[in-house]
Amino acid sequence: MKVLGIDPGSHITGYGIVFSEDQTPHYLAHGIIKMPKKKSLFKRLGLIFKEISDIIETYRPDVLAIEKVFFAKNPHSALLLGHARGVAMLPGILKNIDIHEYSALEIKQAVAGYGRADKEQVKTMVQRLLVIKSDLTYDGADALAAAICCLQHIQGGLFKRGIQ
Amino acid sequence: MKVLGIDPGSHITGYGIVFSEDQTPHYLAHGIIKMPKKKSLFKRLGLIFKEISDIIETYRPDVLAIEKVFFAKNPHSALLLGHARGVAMLPGILKNIDIHEYSALEIKQAVAGYGRADKEQVKTMVQRLLVIKSDLTYDGADALAAAICCLQHIQGGLFKRGIQ
Repeated sequence: MKVLGIDPGSHITGYGIVFSEDQTPHYLAHGIIKMPKKKSLFKRLGLIFKEISDIIETYRPDVLAIEKVFFAKNPHSALLLGHARGVAMLPGILKNIDIHEYSALEIKQAVAGYGRADKEQVKTMVQRLLVIKSDLTYDGADALAAAICCLQHIQGGLFKRGIQ
Repeated sequence: MKVLGIDPGSHITGYGIVFSEDQTPHYLAHGIIKMPKKKSLFKRLGLIFKEISDIIETYRPDVLAIEKVFFAKNPHSALLLGHARGVAMLPGILKNIDIHEYSALEIKQAVAGYGRADKEQVKTMVQRLLVIKSDLTYDGADALAAAICCLQHIQGGLFKRGIQ
């Protein structure tokens, strides 16, 4: 079971791929798609779609995981986030890959055992669960966290490593 | 000059194609992409992308026209509209077709000569400008109106038919 987690944004989109073996999540890859601020929204959306398409082509995930959005600062930022989220999910939709959505609370609960964990705690727990020694960006960590949460929900229960 | 106007929505997306000849807009086609309410958001987004891709393949527009969104009822509906708007524009973005955005005020001004025209007035003026005798849906009329506005802005001035 291989999961691609996506953390979409109109300027930075994080992604992370994990797979499970022996009920343990393993790290495969992660990164960010950073859109130059000078580029038009159109160009940035095209870039998100192409990059996520390439990532799916390369890693062939079985499932996509993405955070549910319940609120946004204001309608304008919600609209922008919607554009990015729609085109980020589209490559998976077009390839009939199942997409699972999880609330921020579920994701934090899954990786840190605490629904109100902050970004730093999520990052640290993602590094611990996946045995990643190098530093992570928050966007990459959030995408990996969504993927870990998805693996945990699909396979049930908690992982051997991490929270016990 | 052929323009595809798009009026995106998470349940109904209108489209309309117009072209100009002798400084006059001519009707080519219009329709709506209606998403079954029972379908998931994912399926609906996939459908919008595929249908707009097919329309572009069939009519090969030179330009895309779409309404600028300044506000939405609330962040949730803005997020949903953003998803639909992003995937509706994407086929054009991927084909490097220029996308022009116009405010509702500019579009109404272009077709009805009055920025606060209501939906019925916009529909009636679109029918008059394009010599369409059959009835139009509001979504189809709005998409055609965006396309007419775009033609008018690109070619400058008002059209021979309609407002003088």
